[in-house]
Amino acid sequence: MAEMEIVVNSLGRRVPKRIGKMSFKPFTGAYGRLPEGRRYAPPMKARWDKVDKIVGGIEEAIKKVGLKDGMTISFHHQMRNGDHTLNRVVKTIAEMGLKNITLAPTSMFPVHNEILPLMRDGTISWINGGSVKSDIGRAVSRGELFGKPIIVRSHGGRTRAIEEGSLHVDVAFISVPVSDPFGNANGVGGKHPCGALGFPWIDSVYADKVVLVTDTIEEYPLSPISIPEYRVDYVAQVEEIGDPKGIEFGTTKITTDPKRLGIASTTVDIIEALGMIRDGLSFQAGAGGISLAVVKFLHERMVDRKVVGSFALGGTTEFVVKMLEEGVVKKILDAQAFDLKAVESLRENRDHVEISHYHYGNPFNMGNAVNKLDFCFLGATEVDTDFNVNVNTYSNGYLMQATGGHQDASAGAKVTFVTCPVARKNVPVIRDRVTTVTSPGETVDIVVTDAGVAINPRREDLIKRFKESSISKGIKLLTIEELKEISYSAAGEEPLEAKTTDEIVALIEYRDGSIIDAVWRVAEE
Amino acid sequence: MAEMEIVVNSLGRRVPKRIGKMSFKPFTGAYGRLPEGRRYAPPMKARWDKVDKIVGGIEEAIKKVGLKDGMTISFHHQMRNGDHTLNRVVKTIAEMGLKNITLAPTSMFPVHNEILPLMRDGTISWINGGSVKSDIGRAVSRGELFGKPIIVRSHGGRTRAIEEGSLHVDVAFISVPVSDPFGNANGVGGKHPCGALGFPWIDSVYADKVVLVTDTIEEYPLSPISIPEYRVDYVAQVEEIGDPKGIEFGTTKITTDPKRLGIASTTVDIIEALGMIRDGLSFQAGAGGISLAVVKFLHERMVDRKVVGSFALGGTTEFVVKMLEEGVVKKILDAQAFDLKAVESLRENRDHVEISHYHYGNPFNMGNAVNKLDFCFLGATEVDTDFNVNVNTYSNGYLMQATGGHQDASAGAKVTFVTCPVARKNVPVIRDRVTTVTSPGETVDIVVTDAGVAINPRREDLIKRFKESSISKGIKLLTIEELKEISYSAAGEEPLEAKTTDEIVALIEYRDGSIIDAVWRVAEE
Repeated sequence: MAEMEIVVNSLGRRVPKRIGKMSFKPFTGAYGRLPEGRRYAPPMKARWDKVDKIVGGIEEAIKKVGLKDGMTISFHHQMRNGDHTLNRVVKTIAEMGLKNITLAPTSMFPVHNEILPLMRDGTISWINGGSVKSDIGRAVSRGELFGKPIIVRSHGGRTRAIEEGSLHVDVAFISVPVSDPFGNANGVGGKHPCGALGFPWIDSVYADKVVLVTDTIEEYPLSPISIPEYRVDYVAQVEEIGDPKGIEFGTTKITTDPKRLGIASTTVDIIEALGMIRDGLSFQAGAGGISLAVVKFLHERMVDRKVVGSFALGGTTEFVVKMLEEGVVKKILDAQAFDLKAVESLRENRDHVEISHYHYGNPFNMGNAVNKLDFCFLGATEVDTDFNVNVNTYSNGYLMQATGGHQDASAGAKVTFVTCPVARKNVPVIRDRVTTVTSPGETVDIVVTDAGVAINPRREDLIKRFKESSISKGIKLLTIEELKEISYSAAGEEPLEAKTTDEIVALIEYRDGSIIDAVWRVAEE
Repeated sequence: MAEMEIVVNSLGRRVPKRIGKMSFKPFTGAYGRLPEGRRYAPPMKARWDKVDKIVGGIEEAIKKVGLKDGMTISFHHQMRNGDHTLNRVVKTIAEMGLKNITLAPTSMFPVHNEILPLMRDGTISWINGGSVKSDIGRAVSRGELFGKPIIVRSHGGRTRAIEEGSLHVDVAFISVPVSDPFGNANGVGGKHPCGALGFPWIDSVYADKVVLVTDTIEEYPLSPISIPEYRVDYVAQVEEIGDPKGIEFGTTKITTDPKRLGIASTTVDIIEALGMIRDGLSFQAGAGGISLAVVKFLHERMVDRKVVGSFALGGTTEFVVKMLEEGVVKKILDAQAFDLKAVESLRENRDHVEISHYHYGNPFNMGNAVNKLDFCFLGATEVDTDFNVNVNTYSNGYLMQATGGHQDASAGAKVTFVTCPVARKNVPVIRDRVTTVTSPGETVDIVVTDAGVAINPRREDLIKRFKESSISKGIKLLTIEELKEISYSAAGEEPLEAKTTDEIVALIEYRDGSIIDAVWRVAEE
């Protein structure tokens, strides 16, 4: 690895200011970096012939856009673990003998394990953005790939990086369920609908070249229009873009564990104790067992209290769709479907509104949706006593999870809840120091565990309201330090700690582009 | 006026290559200029507080955006002759003592006559883009204003100019029928809906600052979203944005004149003679008496022949809405309402799809709607024997009409029809030389008049198909020269000719940014 210059950022984390020729800005606070400069300006171009843009397949598209060694290509993950497009494109690139390509995906899933060999043989030489999981996550964590750290970004942060030009995409390969012959495309039609196309919108605006990949071409003009023809160079027709069943990967089952149900129910009690079960409320609940249970309980509480919310922000699940259909919330703002009910609702219901992730959570524009949230419910692999949250690495040091919208929602919402068990087997979840910081403690307000609740001392307003409420009487309010003690006790005498080397394998970018933490290579066992 | 360097462009028109410090590209053909350089890159900015963007009125908005002497401000004309916003903003600017402001409207209407004094006193020192009419048109034509030529652009051309940065907007004042407190806005809600917001979309993307002006603020999140909050700096609340009745200005009455009805009916016969009454057909019909009649007759013919069209491109009228509702066309692509039925249909019908004028007709992007047209029906004040069309000036030399989508649709459609009477009183409509060229003859295919039809000899394919058809038997096919002779005869012995000086008062930009013609100052009578 190239020579590094390491500094300590405002959270006390060791991060690089420089690695070889790459320089970085250390994190200085959730609102520490101001926008600077101008938006990236792609080349002007035109297409005057009236011939459609359909090309026979990926190889032809790659040739036509002039993809070359060393370029950056992007992908989105609206099909999640059902995506076929990333693998297909990367394998074609390998067959064509291209080398030294940078991947700029929005995220990657276990389905993408099969291109791991192409990350070892020099076809793919870097991952800039998104996140890694599964085999690729393990290989990155062990320092087996690339010789320089991959960059991990939030959903909103990635749109910021593309707009300001710090992430430059030469060719975006945008998988779409249906397109017309000229490139108007959406995610609600076709054979394999995936719902909102919130991720690739930014790529369609700023990539120098845009290739749609689809298995369904319908007549012009296709509507609704999520990706407009005027940004599309080619439409590559393939047999199957993927398997929409994979959309529901790891996200759709409500928890049945009584402890986790208790966390969810306590969370809703706290919302009520804070006086926030009220008309016009807004929230974001991601996927995952506890979050889904929170939504279910919140739904019931709102019905009970005859309260109508203004909007739910998605990632969207059937539980949120049900709230819309029953009039418990007025709108859904949806950038990503987490199940097929969400896809159907977006297609049919005009109050289910598609937005891009640029709209969802870009910190450097004039208004995003996360800033309008009353509360969000987020998960954690670890929380430290300064309320910093880790969702990227496991406590053994392995980089296995995406940032997702964690940084965006936590920075935006009036009240950010983190729901997690106090310990997982021998892992103390509440601890002195998280393995990796994903979201800074200043953006995290209330930690709800099965052993009690801690409110960030920065939020005296919330502590006061909590204590004044009669509803909160049955809820055990602790300090984060007390919660930590319980956590270590529950984890037993040999709490898991990561063993790492002095080599950096990944950088966790904060949504504003500064480096909030580094992920260090896992030491050989 | 500053020193000029005049050249002759490819249509034989005298145009400036340079006026003082301003330099221009002469027109070299409808597809003569290639896109160059990169898109305009507005400054990066952010808004982190969670306070809404509502300001008490225009003056406060002007102060907050920091409008200064010499800056450029833009407006759109979706409210057409019912617009109150342009006048209100300009008068406020005058009251605040600002000077030397450039107006960059999409178009202007007689309602804007009342700011003419502010164009004489130095408040407004130039009009860059859009078009002028009525009193302002007369004052410009007489050389009374600005001391340099105004720039007249097509709808698509204006979006090209903004994206490439040749028209830079410091502050866009975007009048919207309804907005939420953070700037998500549309044209289908509110007290005074105007329909599609196709014009200001480009301003919202590229203006350095964006102010919405509205009389109706509804709760967040407003949908549908035509202008997204993430581009909006402030929302200025006013009492009334305008009078939607003004939308129907000069556009909505079908002709009752038998001659003009004959032109319309002949046009539909020609379409059938060319074999173009077929499933999947697409067309654009503007407003204006003959065009509306063409739509009505086309509708009847399509029903009669059991043909279903793919889409109608708007400016949208009730006549086109009726085709959609009866299933005679599958979709409407709509950038501008010409009547209130169009507004209602856009609100209610999912197959009535809003698009921007960037999507409608920008020549320098990767796909616009005009390129997908089978045919368009356009008007003319004059046509010359090379099929060049004038819609900007009257034959007395006065600049009184907008380019509108004329250049865009004529360049895009497979077959461009120009429908006009052969003469208007003492004005020969078909003539040796048009007073001003708006659209070049190479983009104009068939001229239909009450005295006969001429097909552009460049289109041998159309002439052949026309002659081979039995349907065309009753239609008098002439050469354009023959039509010209008839035209001069009909106009009588003293045909109107413009008397102009050697001073340029306006430049007609072609959609690609080159100068297709100059408008010369009208000589004192």
